[in-house]
Amino acid sequence: MRIDVNADLAEGFGRWELGDDAALLDVVTSANVACGFHAGDPNTLRDACTRAARGGVALGAQVAYRDLAGFGRRFIDIAPEDLTNDVIYQIGALAGFARVAGTEITYVKPHGALYHAVGGHSDQAAAVVEAIRCYDSRLAVLGSPGSRWLELAGQAGLPVYREAFADRAYNPDGTLVSRRAPGALLHDPERIAQRCSRLARGEEIEAVDGSMIRVRAESICVHGDTPDAVAIAHAVRGRLETEGIELVSFAPAPVTENRSPGRPWSDPEHTDTY
Amino acid sequence: MRIDVNADLAEGFGRWELGDDAALLDVVTSANVACGFHAGDPNTLRDACTRAARGGVALGAQVAYRDLAGFGRRFIDIAPEDLTNDVIYQIGALAGFARVAGTEITYVKPHGALYHAVGGHSDQAAAVVEAIRCYDSRLAVLGSPGSRWLELAGQAGLPVYREAFADRAYNPDGTLVSRRAPGALLHDPERIAQRCSRLARGEEIEAVDGSMIRVRAESICVHGDTPDAVAIAHAVRGRLETEGIELVSFAPAPVTENRSPGRPWSDPEHTDTY
Amino acid sequence: MRIDVNADLAEGFGRWELGDDAALLDVVTSANVACGFHAGDPNTLRDACTRAARGGVALGAQVAYRDLAGFGRRFIDIAPEDLTNDVIYQIGALAGFARVAGTEITYVKPHGALYHAVGGHSDQAAAVVEAIRCYDSRLAVLGSPGSRWLELAGQAGLPVYREAFADRAYNPDGTLVSRRAPGALLHDPERIAQRCSRLARGEEIEAVDGSMIRVRAESICVHGDTPDAVAIAHAVRGRLETEGIELVSFAPAPVTENRSPGRPWSDPEHTDTY
Amino acid sequence: MRIDVNADLAEGFGRWELGDDAALLDVVTSANVACGFHAGDPNTLRDACTRAARGGVALGAQVAYRDLAGFGRRFIDIAPEDLTNDVIYQIGALAGFARVAGTEITYVKPHGALYHAVGGHSDQAAAVVEAIRCYDSRLAVLGSPGSRWLELAGQAGLPVYREAFADRAYNPDGTLVSRRAPGALLHDPERIAQRCSRLARGEEIEAVDGSMIRVRAESICVHGDTPDAVAIAHAVRGRLETEGIELVSFAPAPVTENRSPGRPWSDPEHTDTY
Repeated sequence: MRIDVNADLAEGFGRWELGDDAALLDVVTSANVACGFHAGDPNTLRDACTRAARGGVALGAQVAYRDLAGFGRRFIDIAPEDLTNDVIYQIGALAGFARVAGTEITYVKPHGALYHAVGGHSDQAAAVVEAIRCYDSRLAVLGSPGSRWLELAGQAGLPVYREAFADRAYNPDGTLVSRRAPGALLHDPERIAQRCSRLARGEEIEAVDGSMIRVRAESICVHGDTPDAVAIAHAVRGRLETEGIELVSFAPAPVTENRSPGRPWSDPEHTDTY
Repeated sequence: MRIDVNADLAEGFGRWELGDDAALLDVVTSANVACGFHAGDPNTLRDACTRAARGGVALGAQVAYRDLAGFGRRFIDIAPEDLTNDVIYQIGALAGFARVAGTEITYVKPHGALYHAVGGHSDQAAAVVEAIRCYDSRLAVLGSPGSRWLELAGQAGLPVYREAFADRAYNPDGTLVSRRAPGALLHDPERIAQRCSRLARGEEIEAVDGSMIRVRAESICVHGDTPDAVAIAHAVRGRLETEGIELVSFAPAPVTENRSPGRPWSDPEHTDTY
Repeated sequence: MRIDVNADLAEGFGRWELGDDAALLDVVTSANVACGFHAGDPNTLRDACTRAARGGVALGAQVAYRDLAGFGRRFIDIAPEDLTNDVIYQIGALAGFARVAGTEITYVKPHGALYHAVGGHSDQAAAVVEAIRCYDSRLAVLGSPGSRWLELAGQAGLPVYREAFADRAYNPDGTLVSRRAPGALLHDPERIAQRCSRLARGEEIEAVDGSMIRVRAESICVHGDTPDAVAIAHAVRGRLETEGIELVSFAPAPVTENRSPGRPWSDPEHTDTY
Repeated sequence: MRIDVNADLAEGFGRWELGDDAALLDVVTSANVACGFHAGDPNTLRDACTRAARGGVALGAQVAYRDLAGFGRRFIDIAPEDLTNDVIYQIGALAGFARVAGTEITYVKPHGALYHAVGGHSDQAAAVVEAIRCYDSRLAVLGSPGSRWLELAGQAGLPVYREAFADRAYNPDGTLVSRRAPGALLHDPERIAQRCSRLARGEEIEAVDGSMIRVRAESICVHGDTPDAVAIAHAVRGRLETEGIELVSFAPAPVTENRSPGRPWSDPEHTDTY
C-alpha cells in the first residue's frame, strides 16, 4: 500500500513570503512549485528546487494564469493558444531551476482558478494538455478525479494521477464542497490524518452529509498556506507511516547524477479509467 | 572566410509589435530572442523559436533586467544572486520553446542596460556567467570585445564570441561612440554593408575620427527595430554573400531530429584571447 | 445638431507605440485615455492629457482589467469589490495627469473585455459604477445603448451617454456584429463618414442584413489603432463639419485657468431613458 | 513640545500581507501609504486610506520605483522625466483613494532605494520634486536631514519636514549606520522609546560610537514590517505621551466634511534651513 502527499510551494514573491517551504518539504513526496505567474520569484523557485532535489521530493510545475495581483485565483478567459504558450513558458522556467538543482520536473498541476477551469472547460483543459504534450509527453499530470483535464490528458497519452484533498469536505457525489459552504474545511489534524489513512487504503470516507463515499486517488493534497498547515501535514504523514503505508511520489524524481532523461517512469495502470 | 550575423527578435509584447521577425530570420544566422523580462510574450517567443528552427537559425537567450516598462534599458542595481536566478528563469523559459520547436538554445546575449552593465560591472557580469555555468556550461556567450562579461565567461570555461555592430560608429580605441554623440549611427545601407565586409575579412574599418582600427568579431549585430532595419540587414547579407563570405552561426543550431544533446560544438580557438 | 467623436488614446506602453495620438487629437472631441492597466505608461498618459488640454478635448478614463499581456481583451472573473478598487486606482492615476495638465477628467469608458462585460454582467457593471460614484458622481459614463452598465449608472445618478461605432456593422436588433463574423468591419472612409452623418442626424442606418435601424447615440467612436484610423477619423470629421453638424464633447473639458471644480456640466435630458 | 510619528503602510500585495496596518494606525500620526509600484494593491490602499481618515491620521504617498519583484529596494537608473511621471501616476492613484475616503494626501515620502537615491542623486531628487510641484505645490515632503531631496524641495517652495529613525543607529556625523554594519538596528523597545523622547525634545542622542549628536527632526519613523514593529511603536508612543509630548502630524489631514482644498497648512518655519 502506498500513497503520495503533495503540497503547493514557492508561493511567495520577492519581499513577500507565504507558507513554510522548508518544513513542508520534510513532509511531502511531491512539490507543486509555483512558476512565477501567480507567485514565485526566481530566488524562491530555485530554493524550492534545490531543497526538493536534496530531499528526493518530486518536482511538479504548478502552472497558473498570469495574475500576480489575483494570486491566480480569478478565471481568465484566455484564448487556448495563448494559454498553451503561457504554460510552456512556465514549465520551461521551472525546468531551468530543476536542471540547475540536478534534477527534473516530473509532473504538472494547474493552480487556483486554472485548476478549477480545466476541471470542466474543455478548451482550456485541452490547451494545458497540449502544452505538456509539446514540451515533454513523459510529464505526468495531477488533478481531480473526473476532471476534464485528466480525461483529455489521458487521451493524449500523458500519465495521469488523481488527488484527494486532506482538509476539504466532499459531497456525496465525490465533488468538493464549495469553500463558501459551511463545513467545507476540516481543521482537526487527527481527524484529517485518519481520513487520509482511509483514502490511502482505498476505503470509504465520510461525505459532508454523513454518507460514505469512495474517492480514488494516488495522491493526497495538503495545504501549505494556512496557519496549521505544517502541523496537519505532519499529522497526516505520521499516521500514514505508523500504519505502514509507503509514502512515495507518483512521479519520482529522477536519479540526478548524470541528469539522465531515461528515468523509469511507472506505467500507471489506473489511466485506463480515462 | 566566415561570419555570423545576429539580431534581436521577439521584442514585441502582447498587442504590441516591434520589428519584423519573419523578415529578419531570412537574413540572420543567429537570433537573440527576448525572454519575457524586457519584452517577448510567450506567443512571440514560440513563433520566433519555431521560425528559427525551421530556417536553421541559431537561438540565443536575450536575457534582461525585469523591466517591461523600461524595455530593459535602465540599469538596475540588483543583487548578484537575484540576477543569477532571474537569468536562469529566462534561459529556462526560452529553452522550453526551443525544445517545443525541436531545437535548443545555443548561446546567451544580455540585452540593453544589462548588456552595458556586464561590460564593466564585475558583480553583475559574474552573476550572469554563473547563471549560464549552472544551467549548461556548453552555452556560448556573445558580447563586445574587451567586456568584463566575456572575460569572466572565458575564465569560467564558457565558449565566448565577440560581436561588432553594423550600424554604430567606433571610437579610435575600439569602443562604441555613444548614441547621444553626433555620428553615432550609420544610416547608408551600402556603406554599412561595405563596413561589414571589412569586418568579416578582419580588415580595418574607419573610426569616427577617420583613423583606421581593427575590430575582431565572430559576429555582426544588425538592428531589428529601426525603420530601415530589414533593408540594412539585406544589404549586409547580400554584400557578404557576393564576396563569398560564408554566413554561419558561431553556435549552430543542433540537429533537431532526436533532440540530441550531443551536438558538435565548435571549439573556439579565439577564446584563448580572454 | 451636434455630436461627439471619441477615440482610444495612450495605448502604447514604454517602448511600444500604438496609434497616432497627436493626429487623433486633431479630430476627436473626447479622448478615452488608457490608465496603465491594459496599456498606457505614465509618460504616454501625461502626453495625452497635455495635448488634450491644449486642444480642448475632453478627457475620459479608459479603465480596464489589469492585463498588460492581454491588452485588457480577456474577461477576468474578478470580485466586484476588487474591480471597484482597480477602477478607482486607474481613475485617480489619470486624474493626476489631468490635474498636471490644468484640466480634469470628465467621463469614464471601460475598455476591451471590461467594456463587453459591463454590457451584461451586472456585478461587474455595478462595481464600475460604484467606483465612479465613490470617486466623483459628476463624472459621466460612456457606453453602448442598452448596456447594463449605462442602466446601472443612470440608476446611480451618473450622467450617461451612448455611443455608436463608426466602422462596425450592426445587427438588425441594434447590437454589434461580432468581429469574427463576415462584414463586421467597414473599411471605406466615405461610406463610414456618410453613416456617421446619419447617426448624428438621428437618421436610420443600414444594418448588416440591409434593413434600416435607428441607433441613438450622443457620441461616435472611431478607432485609433488600425492602419487607416486617422484617415477614417478625418473623413468622418470632414463630412460632419461640411454638413454643419457641431462637433462637441458630451462632457466638455472644464475651464482650466483656476482648476475650478464647479464646471458647468450639462444636465443630460436623455438619461431618463435609462 | 510636539512630534510626528510616521510608518509605512499598505505594503502587502494581493494575497501577500506585510505588517499590521490596523495596529500601526492606532499609533502613528502620519501614514506613508504604498502606491502600487513597490507594493500596495488597490484594496489595500483603500483600506489604509479609509482607516487613516477615520483615525485622523495624515496620509502621505510613499512613492517608489516600479519594482514589485524587488520591493522598490533596488536603485533604477531611470530618466528623470520618466521618474517624474511615475511619481505623478502614483500620487494620483493614492489621491483617488484619499478622495474616496473623504480626505486628501498631504505629503510625499519616497520609499526604499528611491529614498536613498534622492538623498544624493540630484537628477532623481529634482525629478521627484518636479512631480510634486506639478501636481500640488501644497504637498509637503518628508525626508532625511541634509538630503538633496529636502534641499531641492525647499528651493521649489514645497514645505519640507525631517525625520529621524527610531530603531536605527546613527554615525557621529548624523548619517545612518548602514544596515549591514553591526549595531545598525536597535531592538530594545524601552531604549528606542527613550531615544525617541530625546529626539522629540531636541536633545542629543547617542551615536554608534558613544558620542552624542543632535538630530533635528519633525517626525520619527517607526518600522512596520519587523516582528516587533507594533510593540516598538506602542512603546514609543506611550513614552512620548507619558512625557507630555504632543503627537501630531506635520501635515495634518484636512477636515473631511466638504473635501475643502483650503485646509490650513502650517507654515513651517524650519524650511529656511534649506
